[in-house]
Formats: sequence, structure tokens, C-alpha cells
Amino acid sequence: VEGANVELAYAGAKTFLKGEMRDVGDISDVDAAAFGVPYDGAVSNRPGARYGPQAIRRASGWWAYLSDYKGGLTNMQTGKQVNFDDLTVADCGDAPVFPMDSETTAESITAHMATVASQTFPVMLGGDHYCTFPAVRGFAEGGEYDNVGFVQIDAHTDTVSESPVFGTDFHGSSTSLIANSEYTDYENVSQVGIRGYESPKFFEFAEETGLNLYTMRDVEDQGITSVVSDAVAAAAEGTDAVYVSFDIDAVDPSVAPGTGTPVPGGLTPHQALKTMEVLGETNDVGAVDMMEVAPRYDSDEGTQRLASYLLVTLLERKFAE
Amino acid sequence: VEGANVELAYAGAKTFLKGEMRDVGDISDVDAAAFGVPYDGAVSNRPGARYGPQAIRRASGWWAYLSDYKGGLTNMQTGKQVNFDDLTVADCGDAPVFPMDSETTAESITAHMATVASQTFPVMLGGDHYCTFPAVRGFAEGGEYDNVGFVQIDAHTDTVSESPVFGTDFHGSSTSLIANSEYTDYENVSQVGIRGYESPKFFEFAEETGLNLYTMRDVEDQGITSVVSDAVAAAAEGTDAVYVSFDIDAVDPSVAPGTGTPVPGGLTPHQALKTMEVLGETNDVGAVDMMEVAPRYDSDEGTQRLASYLLVTLLERKFAE
Amino acid sequence: VEGANVELAYAGAKTFLKGEMRDVGDISDVDAAAFGVPYDGAVSNRPGARYGPQAIRRASGWWAYLSDYKGGLTNMQTGKQVNFDDLTVADCGDAPVFPMDSETTAESITAHMATVASQTFPVMLGGDHYCTFPAVRGFAEGGEYDNVGFVQIDAHTDTVSESPVFGTDFHGSSTSLIANSEYTDYENVSQVGIRGYESPKFFEFAEETGLNLYTMRDVEDQGITSVVSDAVAAAAEGTDAVYVSFDIDAVDPSVAPGTGTPVPGGLTPHQALKTMEVLGETNDVGAVDMMEVAPRYDSDEGTQRLASYLLVTLLERKFAE
Amino acid sequence: VEGANVELAYAGAKTFLKGEMRDVGDISDVDAAAFGVPYDGAVSNRPGARYGPQAIRRASGWWAYLSDYKGGLTNMQTGKQVNFDDLTVADCGDAPVFPMDSETTAESITAHMATVASQTFPVMLGGDHYCTFPAVRGFAEGGEYDNVGFVQIDAHTDTVSESPVFGTDFHGSSTSLIANSEYTDYENVSQVGIRGYESPKFFEFAEETGLNLYTMRDVEDQGITSVVSDAVAAAAEGTDAVYVSFDIDAVDPSVAPGTGTPVPGGLTPHQALKTMEVLGETNDVGAVDMMEVAPRYDSDEGTQRLASYLLVTLLERKFAE
Amino acid sequence: VEGANVELAYAGAKTFLKGEMRDVGDISDVDAAAFGVPYDGAVSNRPGARYGPQAIRRASGWWAYLSDYKGGLTNMQTGKQVNFDDLTVADCGDAPVFPMDSETTAESITAHMATVASQTFPVMLGGDHYCTFPAVRGFAEGGEYDNVGFVQIDAHTDTVSESPVFGTDFHGSSTSLIANSEYTDYENVSQVGIRGYESPKFFEFAEETGLNLYTMRDVEDQGITSVVSDAVAAAAEGTDAVYVSFDIDAVDPSVAPGTGTPVPGGLTPHQALKTMEVLGETNDVGAVDMMEVAPRYDSDEGTQRLASYLLVTLLERKFAE
Amino acid sequence: VEGANVELAYAGAKTFLKGEMRDVGDISDVDAAAFGVPYDGAVSNRPGARYGPQAIRRASGWWAYLSDYKGGLTNMQTGKQVNFDDLTVADCGDAPVFPMDSETTAESITAHMATVASQTFPVMLGGDHYCTFPAVRGFAEGGEYDNVGFVQIDAHTDTVSESPVFGTDFHGSSTSLIANSEYTDYENVSQVGIRGYESPKFFEFAEETGLNLYTMRDVEDQGITSVVSDAVAAAAEGTDAVYVSFDIDAVDPSVAPGTGTPVPGGLTPHQALKTMEVLGETNDVGAVDMMEVAPRYDSDEGTQRLASYLLVTLLERKFAE
Ligand SMILES: [Mn+2]
Ligand SMILES: [Mn+2]
Ligand SMILES: [Mn+2]
Ligand SMILES: [Mn+2]
Ligand SMILES: [Mn+2]
Ligand SMILES: [Mn+2]
Ligand SMILES: [Mn+2]
Ligand SMILES: [Mn+2]
Ligand SMILES: [Mn+2]
Ligand SMILES: [Mn+2]
Ligand SMILES: [Mn+2]
Ligand SMILES: [Mn+2]
Repeated sequence: VEGANVELAYAGAKTFLKGEMRDVGDISDVDAAAFGVPYDGAVSNRPGARYGPQAIRRASGWWAYLSDYKGGLTNMQTGKQVNFDDLTVADCGDAPVFPMDSETTAESITAHMATVASQTFPVMLGGDHYCTFPAVRGFAEGGEYDNVGFVQIDAHTDTVSESPVFGTDFHGSSTSLIANSEYTDYENVSQVGIRGYESPKFFEFAEETGLNLYTMRDVEDQGITSVVSDAVAAAAEGTDAVYVSFDIDAVDPSVAPGTGTPVPGGLTPHQALKTMEVLGETNDVGAVDMMEVAPRYDSDEGTQRLASYLLVTLLERKFAE
Repeated sequence: VEGANVELAYAGAKTFLKGEMRDVGDISDVDAAAFGVPYDGAVSNRPGARYGPQAIRRASGWWAYLSDYKGGLTNMQTGKQVNFDDLTVADCGDAPVFPMDSETTAESITAHMATVASQTFPVMLGGDHYCTFPAVRGFAEGGEYDNVGFVQIDAHTDTVSESPVFGTDFHGSSTSLIANSEYTDYENVSQVGIRGYESPKFFEFAEETGLNLYTMRDVEDQGITSVVSDAVAAAAEGTDAVYVSFDIDAVDPSVAPGTGTPVPGGLTPHQALKTMEVLGETNDVGAVDMMEVAPRYDSDEGTQRLASYLLVTLLERKFAE
Repeated sequence: VEGANVELAYAGAKTFLKGEMRDVGDISDVDAAAFGVPYDGAVSNRPGARYGPQAIRRASGWWAYLSDYKGGLTNMQTGKQVNFDDLTVADCGDAPVFPMDSETTAESITAHMATVASQTFPVMLGGDHYCTFPAVRGFAEGGEYDNVGFVQIDAHTDTVSESPVFGTDFHGSSTSLIANSEYTDYENVSQVGIRGYESPKFFEFAEETGLNLYTMRDVEDQGITSVVSDAVAAAAEGTDAVYVSFDIDAVDPSVAPGTGTPVPGGLTPHQALKTMEVLGETNDVGAVDMMEVAPRYDSDEGTQRLASYLLVTLLERKFAE
Repeated sequence: VEGANVELAYAGAKTFLKGEMRDVGDISDVDAAAFGVPYDGAVSNRPGARYGPQAIRRASGWWAYLSDYKGGLTNMQTGKQVNFDDLTVADCGDAPVFPMDSETTAESITAHMATVASQTFPVMLGGDHYCTFPAVRGFAEGGEYDNVGFVQIDAHTDTVSESPVFGTDFHGSSTSLIANSEYTDYENVSQVGIRGYESPKFFEFAEETGLNLYTMRDVEDQGITSVVSDAVAAAAEGTDAVYVSFDIDAVDPSVAPGTGTPVPGGLTPHQALKTMEVLGETNDVGAVDMMEVAPRYDSDEGTQRLASYLLVTLLERKFAE
Repeated sequence: VEGANVELAYAGAKTFLKGEMRDVGDISDVDAAAFGVPYDGAVSNRPGARYGPQAIRRASGWWAYLSDYKGGLTNMQTGKQVNFDDLTVADCGDAPVFPMDSETTAESITAHMATVASQTFPVMLGGDHYCTFPAVRGFAEGGEYDNVGFVQIDAHTDTVSESPVFGTDFHGSSTSLIANSEYTDYENVSQVGIRGYESPKFFEFAEETGLNLYTMRDVEDQGITSVVSDAVAAAAEGTDAVYVSFDIDAVDPSVAPGTGTPVPGGLTPHQALKTMEVLGETNDVGAVDMMEVAPRYDSDEGTQRLASYLLVTLLERKFAE
Repeated sequence: VEGANVELAYAGAKTFLKGEMRDVGDISDVDAAAFGVPYDGAVSNRPGARYGPQAIRRASGWWAYLSDYKGGLTNMQTGKQVNFDDLTVADCGDAPVFPMDSETTAESITAHMATVASQTFPVMLGGDHYCTFPAVRGFAEGGEYDNVGFVQIDAHTDTVSESPVFGTDFHGSSTSLIANSEYTDYENVSQVGIRGYESPKFFEFAEETGLNLYTMRDVEDQGITSVVSDAVAAAAEGTDAVYVSFDIDAVDPSVAPGTGTPVPGGLTPHQALKTMEVLGETNDVGAVDMMEVAPRYDSDEGTQRLASYLLVTLLERKFAE
């Protein structure tokens, strides 16, 4: 039957961008490889990010339809010509997770990410934000980087050292764990979109540690393009590669309600997309994740759709322009 | 029983603006006549615009309550006095549609629109955007216009010539069909709100054909009032009448999620309302439609509510100030 | 990491029963092969069955978890020991569909089904019920059967000859098309679960044509086990193989609301499961489909979960006891 | 355009059964006339029955489609031939209501019902169950009946005399008001489906007053057909006409969740439909209402669909067999 | 203001049955004391039972309204007079839980339950079913019972010994842990409502261990009243007190969809209520819990409403008849 | 069990900010006392604000978790250090309401508010906006103020004098009643966020009466900080205390859909939060309410979450910086 080679957005396999399903050990020929982490055992409030990977994959179906259908494309936002034939993506499925055992889950994530990072550009689909800590570790190990920069788009700083209820390893402590690991420190950590409440004297803490902090107030005052350019430059300074972590709660909850710990007053869709454009332009970025998508809190599927657009925006800039 | 003459928003008939239900052949005495097109057989992704007409009608009930209740009104956005006694609206029900037969459906729409346009100002409630092509044809025929200008508010350009899956007649080709019809050409087509991805070298295409293209980037740079003024002027230039087509996906999906092919980064409510204010001020506009409202994707009914406000804004400016 | 070989219900690939994703031409070694038909262009009322295949696949994830985890199992309803190692299932993805072109879609389905049926036991995931007509044709062609029996579990008889709105090919005419095809006739068609309204003198029609009709009243009077036993025997009589088609609207809409044309008063969960137990016991059944699952009308996901249990019940009886 | 005379379920006017919209004073030529009462100001718990009339009307669209399309029909439940050409229904819109003034609303309902009842068979679409009290009054006045029998299908008895919070006039006291009115008394009141909690010594109260009480336990023990036959006979005994009031909460909340004061353990769909079959068979029934449908509590629209089927079942038996 | 002493169902405090909020150490004067366990860290599939306690409390508001309002009441199902003045209930809030630490959570539950059980009749609101294991331990310790009988109403047997993903302590192993504890053994464990799949040779396992197993097939064959009578008798035999644990997934998912691991073919509302009637009649029952209510999977709130009715049914029988 | 003193957001009592539940007569030692008004009997359109108090309370749980957990905090928006130990809040439960009797309800509200205002800073959780009229009266009486200023954040002016359907006392007349009461007049009334339609010549009305009117157009032109500063200054001028009333429909319905009478084009989350910052900074504000939260119209719970953040923002500025 003719025409069969163009697949509808809602048809066929539900892999990321309808990429080929590949074993995690066999991806050295692709531009980027996605894998999921269906784990939300380390959240401090509402569960559901375990459904993030499958939701983002499903929402990414429109892209393959579009790119099959039109061949090369014009990106009407950036005004650039893009050729998606230049971007090959594989999907390695989900890393094994252990819902009641965050330590074993972390080991599994580190191993999985290291395997991917040793071969190609990793795209991790979360899962709660705790998972980013073992992922950064795996990224450094797999990529054999001594120093890793970290750009975090987030409403929260995730810099708790220890919680009486959650201990030292949960989604509120991941950045603390990363900055205190052997691979990075706060001077190469940049945070964009921060709001709500943080520890007392947090601004002093940022100043002392060298953390590159950009609150929503900074975004409004300085403009998103300038903020993100500065953020990635600071993270890249003196490091071997930059890991970008996008906590979807950075976006305003009226736009991306599908997340566990929403805070009013976040990024607009335009600001979020622009963030990814800027990050996609640098050569420094070596991995990206999209975390805390909890689709059951969004009745209208907009959260995962935006998450999918955000990842495509970065990948397109990097590989397909 | 006293007071009975003021009907509550949720009570009574569910016609557009609670206008009188009229036969389509008997509307020459009203200012405007609405009809529905409950057809979504030509969509490329999510179905559901067949429920658009009934949703917009239901959402428009607040207006009759308000206008009954307060008589004349002050529009607090525009600061103008309006008198809704000067605006009489009829509702002619739905045009016959054939869910599995787009050609016969198109003929039915053309016939229905021609009948309306020969008598009064038409307001079409969609239905998917393919329906706008036969509607413009009917508008020209009924209004006996040789040349029709076309203002399209949309995330997409709908300028595909042929799809391997959908052929030449679907909601992605309607503007192409309109611009290539005997009644108009791309020099009298204006598009506002465009974003996402389009065919390769689309900007060159626009330049070559004379298409008046205003992307979301243009809206942000130039301001919505200026963009829409320019857009309608270009469409009106040398034509006998302008047809305004509002694809609700022009609005950001966080505001109007109830649509089949949403794209992040669209118009704000303020920009959308302002668009209709500007369009309502010109004498050139001779018809309007509201397309692609698919209410089941909006759990909170905001899409159809906004659609109803948008239509009232244009009609009020035109007939009731 | 240890334990990784047992995958959680919500993790990993979203193929049917987490079967291996296989090319449709390479399935001769499996017990059964599933494929989807994401098409709802032939419905007479509410669209949405295009999302049926992905919903059933997603809902079937629990099964792989259970069977991995426990090895052999006891089915607590039937009291039987089952060994799911004896059941290997592949998933061939979705057949190409053409949303605006039912004829080409039908050809595609026939071709896909024929390819599957020539190699193994087919499991089709719909899609609207029109698709069953080309599927039965493909089943006969692929299986090289001269005569096919047809067991339809449905609220509706789908025996319309021609509709003024939909013509001769839609989900209300599929059984008519099947019974009038070269491969079967009404004497080998059995229908279970019928209610609501049908054509005038339908009981006379059934008697004249030999249609084996079991209404909900019959189910209540005679008992589901006896009804289904009789139904499959009548369909098998003198035929080479029986095709089982389960329209999910056979089940009561309070249990399975996720479908386009629900009718109150249908099968209970117990009756539906029992139906599949009985069908799974005979050697005559050579193919099964699960149609009209439209998940967006079921806010609580029960429809696709039940659909998945129903298919497993039949397959387990047939292959794993 | 050919075929245009058959309207799809979701197209066109949203009147009851797509009946003609008529002025309440001009209905003497129809078999039955529906009107809505969008009032829920007298509920003791969850509001929302004000949306009942529009929901039932919308859900009733399937019927006109079916009957247009097939002409005469076979009812597959009853096995009877029905001819819907023999049933003409008008829709008189909604009676004026006053959300903060139950007394004026009651007067309006009485006036509206009396006007309808003086001309034809009334079908009232609620609204909360308080509205049935003024409706029965209007039925007696309009029909010029001295004695009216009352059959109430309900989870609750609605026999409170006075509530400290709601006073004497609310949805928990309507049957008390009816039975104590000049038109009826408890000996001609029959209640079916009662469960939950009632006043102390309610069984003694029933015995003393002569109330014909059929609890869910009675329905289970005696069977629904026998219970309803007895109920309507008791109500008809010595009266001029019987008014049937169906509180949708009589049905089990898993089937009909869209109501304000649900009680587990109610009628099955089969029992509810059978109730209407039996009531439709007697000549005594002179009016029917369908109350307490609050569609926003049913995410899947099943409540209003069932409500529409229930009303059709009674009307069909009465007018179209 | 008069009438103020009767509180509406949706007003005021959201404690269980609007009982007085009490410190857990100060409840020796009440008939029963409820406490919540907002923990779902031990589930094998969908999370959300952490919201069970607040949902059941909120749903229980109707009861206080009814009992305040009417004083004594007639239970229309049982036909009995009840006096809720005879039932005083306290709510001790929620036991501390540690989402990432099931062991500490278990200790906390045991301590909380022991404190309650040493003073009065405990009512635990879950929470996932793992929590029942530490609760039974606490019940034995607080009540100073040497031998405890265990009646489990459930779709699942929860008798896994060890899972490769979840280890030995999760909601699938709780009954195994209970039966192997010092306080009870399988001969005093009764299970009602079992269906779906269990370990191989489970029926032999039941026979060998003496587990009193009642599957859904037994319920249908033997009748729910007889099954539950037998079940509680077996659990009580030779023990000091019986603990009743109601996993809401025992009820059919069309009735109680708000739970994490639903299985089609469960108890009807009538069967579930009858179960609690029978259990409330014996003197043996010394504690009850209601587990696995995950309200976000039930769009219509029926699950928590039924859960609340079930608990009231048992308490009423025990304390208020 | 250690750690138990930090309660999770979703655990424990559902009082406002998890404040102590107190009798309304015993709150003189706290900084602020909240009480609910679960009444929506005076709305002109969609009911549901009766569920506002419990929704806001539930949504406010995150705050106690945060403040317990971190002790002092940095507000990342304002850049200020806050110490929530300096803010003690009590919750007095709900004022008695009478759903069918607005007059008695108003008396109850006045009495409740007067009792609170005589002891501490009142925080009223609505309920529809009519309730603000009796609350302002009670505030003046309890606080023994001769003159009260009134700052209203709202889409609507609520200045109707009399409606033919609702009379003189409903949520559209509350500001008219307040301004015409003995305690204030229009010169001390400020309105922010106004849009949509108002009475004819409303701008003249504002000029004549001295009403301080700030439409959304003014907010856009002048900036929210300046507008609110002016608004509160005008309200405070010559009065003894200012009452702040926040109708949640002031916020754009895409952000706060959970309300009964939404109007497109409202405040952004940033503007709304900034409004509360400015109001919290003045010494003049003596009470605050949050009205018209109707949670069932917001599928994603964002409305009540924002409402809770807004109240905290004001209280924090006032008591905890
Ligand atoms: Mn984070
Ligand atoms: Mn975050
Ligand atoms: Mn378009
Ligand atoms: Mn579009
Ligand atoms: Mn069918
Ligand atoms: Mn069917
Ligand atoms: Mn009732
Ligand atoms: Mn009732
Ligand atoms: Mn269990
Ligand atoms: Mn269970
Ligand atoms: Mn207001
Ligand atoms: Mn307002």
C-alpha cells in the first residue's frame, strides 16, 4: 500500500522520536540515545514521575510524522533550515529500577548512563530529580571526564544536605550530591528559574560556594537569553563537558502542571524554548535530561508535549541545523 | 412569574449567543448568522473538532445573560460603550456533514455558506480547518465577490500541496487550496501566529508568492496591534471583502488546550482578544470562522469560553459600538 | 544490577504483553502475533478508537511483570495451572492506515492480516469495527481457508446494508459485508451481547438468514457459558476456522465506558471473562480481535485493562494451560 | 446535498430527542413535551443538577439519529417492533428559575407544568428533587386531577418534615410535601430502590401511613418486575393519574455517578431499564420526570446517557409500540 | 445563629466521621479510634494510596451530617434501628511515615497501632497493604493478644515470600509476613475475594498450610454471607481476637477504580457491604483497616465513598445497633 | 520514631497552614486566624465555591512541611529572609452556613468574623463573593472600626444594585452593599484587575462616586506594583483599617480555572503574587479573604495552590520578615 512509509503521530512504536529500539550496548553509530528512568521513589511530595518516560515518548510521536512527511523543514521560531536526516536517535528502553531501593536504582542508572555516554550523546527521560545525581556520575565515568559542568533548569535548588524524613538521598538533595562529588563543584553549577523558598541565607551560600544562581527575578530583569548564555558559560568554564538537567517544574504550573512539586511564577513556554535554543547552540553540552514529568497531574497532556518540544529544540540545534 | 425574562447563562436554548434558531434561508434581517460544521474527518492528528460547534454555543450562554441583564454595557477592556440591542444574531443550526466523505461535506459547506453570505454576515463554527476552504468558496459565491482577502490566525500555515497520507484535501492544505482558487491568491492572504515547523525554505516561498506572513516572533517584535492592522490591510488590498479564519491553535496550548494539533509558544489571551478588536474595527471584514475547537482535550472548558469571547469581541466592534 | 531481569508493569517497551517487536514477515516461530489498527474513520458517532492499540498495549504491561516474576501461575478463576513460558507473543506494530481513505486502509489491513495469518495466530487491536471486515478477508486469504466462521461479541449487530450518511462501508455494516463475502454467510455468524435497537423485523431477518443471534436477554436466560458454547459451535459448523471479534461495547458501559457507541445493559466483567474462557477452550478459534476501545472516554483506564485481560484469558486457555 | 436529512447524533439542535422547539403554550398536538428545570438550590450536599437538563438533552441525540436512519426499529431487549413515527415530542425549553429563591422557582415550575399537563404528556428534566413537589402540584392543576398517584424511584425517601439547616422545603422533603398536599396521600405513594439511612422507626411510619415501600432488599428478594408492577398498581389505586418521578440516584453510583447524593448498593442498568418498561406498559402513568442528574460528577457521561435511555424506554412503550 | 449545630457534609473538620481530633495517647473513652497511614512506598505498580487517609476522611462527612440531623436512624438495608449516639469515634491523625524507608515506617505503624489497641478499637486508614503487617504486630502487642486471627478481603493473596525487585517487605508479601509471625499462622488466616493469578500450585499451598481461601468463584457459588461467616469463624478459632483487613481492590474495579492494582471480576457493592455486616455481627473482630484506596485513579470519588460506607457498616453493627 | 516531628505535605490535619484547630473564641494569642465559609448559594452562574475552604486548606499543606523542615527560609522571589516561627496561625473551622438562606448565612458570617476580628488578624476562606459583605460588616464590628477601607482584587466590580433574578443580595452586589454600608464608601474602595463588561457608563459612575478603579488595561500600562500601591493608599486614606478581598477570578482563567465566573485576560501568576507582596508591606491591612475558589473546575489543582501561595505571601510579609 502506497503512502505507508509516513507514519501518523499516534501510530506505531512509542519510542522517543520514534527512534529505533536498540540495545544499550549498541548505539555508537547514532547522534543521540534516549533511555528512561521510571522511578519516583525519592520524591518529597506527589508521586507519578515513574510515568514520565512513557509519556514523553508518546508525546514525541508528532516529530517523526512531521520530519518524515516534509523532509527538510523550516523552524519558524528560529527562522533556520533544519534537516532531521542529520539527526539519528536511538531508544534504549528503560534502565532497571527498584521502587523501594534508591541505592540499587542509583547504581543501575549510573551503569546505564555510563554505557550510553561512552558511545554517544545521552538523553535521559525521568523519573524524579534524584536520578540526575547517579546519571551525572555515570556521564563522567562513561565519558571519561574529570570535570563536569552542570546546568540545572529548575524551580528548586535541590541543595538540601539532609532531611529528617528523607535522609541524604532524595530529589531535594541531588544537586548537593553532584556539587560535592569528585566530578564537579558549585562553581561549575548554574541554576536557572529558581523561586519559592530555600534554606536561610541561601544568597550567602551561593556567594560563598560560587554557585551560579539565576532566580526568576533574574530571568525577568536580565532576559532569558542572556541568563542562559551566562549560565552555560559558567558551567563550561574549566570543565570537560556540560550536563544539562531540565526539571519540568521550572516552567510555570499553569503551562506544565504535570509535575509533583509545582511552584507558581515560573518560565513561560517562550522562555523555556529559548533556554533550549541557547543550550543547543554551544558545543559544550554533552548530555541532557528531562525530569519530574508526572503526567497524571496534567489532564490535558501539555506537560509531556512541551517536554518533548524542549528536547527536540536542543537536539535540533545541536545536530540538525 | 416576574424576572422570567432574564435567562441564566446555563438555562434555555444552546444556540450561539442564544440567538433565534432560524432556517438558513430566512436570515436577511439579522446582523449576523452562525452555523456549525461538526466535521473533523480531515485532521492529521487528534480528532474531536466535531464537538466544536456545540461547545462554543454552550459557552456563549453567558453573553445573553449579561446583555439581557444590564442592557447597554461598558466594555472594560476597550473602554467603549456597547449596545447589544444593535446586534441581532441568528443561529441556523449545523450544515449537513458526511464523516467519511470530505468532498460531499465540502459541497454542503459551500452551499450553506453561500446561502448565508447572500443574506448577512456569516459566523462559521468549526469543525476542522479544512472546512474553511469550501466556506471561502461559498462566501465568494454567496456574496458575489470576485476577489476575497483571507486573514488566517493560526499556529500553522496550512499550505501543504499534497500529503502521502491525506492527499490534497485536508486541514493542512486548506490555505493552499484557497490561495490557488479563483477567488484569491497569496498576496491577499495574511497569516498571524505561525510557529513550529513548516516546509523547507518557507520564508522564500512567502517572499515569492507574496504571502503576508507574521510569525510569533513578528508578533513579539512588532506588537500584536500593528501586526494585525498590517495583516488585514494586506488582505483587503484590492479585494471585495475579507474572510477572517481563526484557528484556535493560534493561542498558546496552556490557554486553549482544547484543539487537535497544539504547538507551544502561541498567543496570550490578551493578544488574541486584541486581534479580534483590530479586525472588528475595519469595514473590510465580511465573514468570520472559529475552527479546530476540540473541547474534550480541555478538561476545564476554557478553550470554548475563549472562542466565544473572541467572536463576541469582533461582532461587538462591528455591530454594537 | 541484580533483579533487573524482572521488569515493572509500567517500565520498558509498550508492546502487547511486552512481546518482542517483530517485522510482520518474521513471526512464524511465535504462538501469536499482535498488530494494531489505529483507525477510527468509519465510526457513526464518537471518534477515538485510533488510540485503542496503544492503550491496550500499555495496559497489558502487568502481565509480563506477573509472568516473569512468578514463572508458572495458578489462574484463581479457572483453578488451572498455567505456564506462560508456553505462550510466545510478538508485536508487529501497526498496520498503515489512511484516516481519510477507508478503502486504502481496508486494503492495508487485509494485506497485514494475511501476512500474519499465514504464519501464526493473529491478534488484532482496533480501531473501529469496520476494520474487522478487511481483517476477516485477510484471515481467509492468509490462512487459505475457504470457509470462515465468525463469532461477534457486540452490543450491535453491525448488519446495516447502506446508510445515507456513511454509505456501505462503515462500522455499522461490517458484519453485513463479512456475511455477504465469499468466505462466510450468516449461518456461520454468531452474535452475543446484542441489545438496543436494530432494523425492523430483525428477528425475522435472523431466522431467514440463519444468523445465530444471542441477545442480552438470551445471555440472562440461558447463561453465558451455554450461550457462548452454542455460538462458537454454530460458527465452527462446516467452516475451516473461526474468527472471534470482540467489540468492547458488548460489555456494560459502566464497566467499559471507553468506547464510541455505548449501550446500557451489557455484559458484566464476569460474563465477559467467561466468554473468553469458553472461546479459548475450543480448537476452532484461529484469530481474535479487540475492537472499539476508545480510551479517552474512560477516565479511569478500566476499559483497556479489561480488554487486555480478555485477550490474555483466551490466549492462555489456548496456549498456556 | 443528498443524505442531509439524516442528522448525526452530535450534530444540530440539542433539544430533547431532537424534538421541535415549541412555545410552552403550543404543544397540544404532540404526544409528549419536555421542559427543563435547571435548578439545584435545594440540595443538601453537592450542587450541579442545574446542568441536568442540558446534559440529558445532549445525550438524547443518538435517538433521533437512530430513528431517522432506520425508520421502524426492533427493540432488542423487549423483542418488540417500535415505530418512532408514532411518537412526536416537543421541547419547550427551560422553566424560569431563581437560584436564590426556592419559593418563586416553585411557583414557576407549577405554572409551567400545569400549562404542559393541560395539553399533553409532560416530561420534566431536573434539576434537584425538590422541583418534583411543585411539578406534581402543577400536574394535578393542569390535568384537572383530584387525586394523583406518585411512583418514586429513588435511593432516598425524601420524607423529612423539617431540617434545622434547610427548613421545610428542600430535596429531602419533597415527598413529604407531596403526600401531605391536597392531591395525594401516602397510600398512593410508592417508593422503589430505597436504601441507606432513614428516620428512626421508618418501617413503622410506612405501615402507619400506608406508604408503599420497596427497598433494595425487596427488589432483590421479589424481583424488579414484580416490585414495579405492585408499586404502580398501589399508586394508581383510586387516583386519576400517576406521576412517575425517577431520581437517578436510585441507580448504583458505579453506573450513574453523576448525581449529588449517591448511596452504594442501587439498581443495576438492567433493573432500571426494566422499571421503565413496566411503567410504560400501564395506562395510568400521566407524567414522568428525571431528576438529580448532575453531569459534572460523571467524567464519562454515562449518567445522562442512561437517563436518556430510561426516558425513551417509558415513552416508547407508551406511544410507539 | 440557630441550626448551627448541624454541620453540612462538606463543612468543617475533615476527621474520620467528623470524630474529635485526639492525641493518640488519650482515647480510652471512645468506642473506636481512627488513624491514617499515608504511605505507598511498598506498592508493586501504581502509587497513590498515600492519599487514601485524607480521601476516606473527606468522604465520611456525610455520616456526621446524617446522624446529627436525624438522631436515631433506620438502616434501610438491614432493617435495624441504629443509634449513633452509642458510637463515639476519635481521629488520632496520621502515624509518622518515611516515604523512602519502609522499615522505619513499619516501626512507626506498629508503635501507633499498639498505642491505639491498648485503649480502644482501632480503625486504620491506608496506605498500601504492606502497612497491615506492622499493624497486626502492633495490634497483638497493644492488645496483649497471644494469637490473632486475620480476615483479609482482597483480590490478591499477598503471600509472596520474596520478589527480586521488591525483596521481602512489600504489599505483595504482607500476609506471608503476618502468617509467619509469632502471633498467627495460616490456619487462622481467611481470604475472601481472591482472583487473578497466584503462585503455581496455590491451591495445594492453601491446603498444606491450612489457609482458609475463598475465591470469587467460591463467593459466587456459596454466597457472600456464608463465605464471610465461615471465614471469620476460621480466623477466630482458637485466637484471642480477629483483625479484619479490607483491601479495596477486592471490590470490582468498575465500582472502586481508585486503587493501584485492580483486577476485573470482583465483589459487587452489595457483596462488599454484606461482608461488613457479617463481620460487624461477631464479637471476635477487634480491629479493622481499609487499605489501598488511591483516590486519583477514581475520577468520580466513588472508591473513597464506598470505603467510608464499608467502615461505617461494620462499626454500626458492632457499636450502634 | 525519629524524624516524626516533620510532617509531610499530604499527611496529617488539613487545617490552614496546618495551624492549630482552635475554638473561634480562643485565638487572641495567634498572629492570624483562618475560618472557612463553605457557601455558594449566591452565585450567578456555576456553583462550587462551597468546596473552596477545604481545597485551600489541603493545598496549604506544603507550607508547614517546608517551614518545619528548613526552619528559617529565604524567599527567593523577594530575596528576603523569613522566619515562620514568627507567624502563628490558628484555624477556627467553618462558620455555620445555610445553603438556602443567604440572610441567616450572612448573620452567621458577620458574627464569626466579628469574633475573630476582635482578637486577631482574620483570614477568611470562601465561599462566594457575596460572603465578603457580611464579613466586612463583622470586621468593622469586631475591630470597632468606624471607617473601613476596601481593596478588591477581582475581574468584576460586583456593583450591581439589583438583579431581576437574584435581587439585591448576591455575589454581583457585594461591593455595592459594602460601599453603601455605614462603614465605608466608594472613595475608600479600590478595585484591581477589572475586565469584561460592566454597567453602562461605568467609568462615569467611578468618577462620580470616587471609586478607585484599576482595570487590566491600567495594570498593563502602569505596572502592577504601582497600581496596588495606589489602590491600598486610596483605601487606607482616612480609614481605621483596610480589608483586602481577593476574588480568585482576578487571575487569568488559564492559570486559575477553578472558579465560577471566569473572564479571559486576567492577572499573571507573577502579577498576583506581586499584588500580595505589596499589600503585605503596608501596616494598614487588617484582614484578608480569598474567595470564589471552586476547585472542581480545575482538574489540576492549580487554583487552590495559587490561592494558598497568595495568602502566605501576604501573611509572610506582614508577620514573618
Ligand atoms: Mn529538581
Ligand atoms: Mn524542581
Ligand atoms: Mn489551521
Ligand atoms: Mn493550526
Ligand atoms: Mn461492532
Ligand atoms: Mn458495537
Ligand atoms: Mn430524591
Ligand atoms: Mn435520592
Ligand atoms: Mn492486598
Ligand atoms: Mn489487593
Ligand atoms: Mn467578585
Ligand atoms: Mn469575580
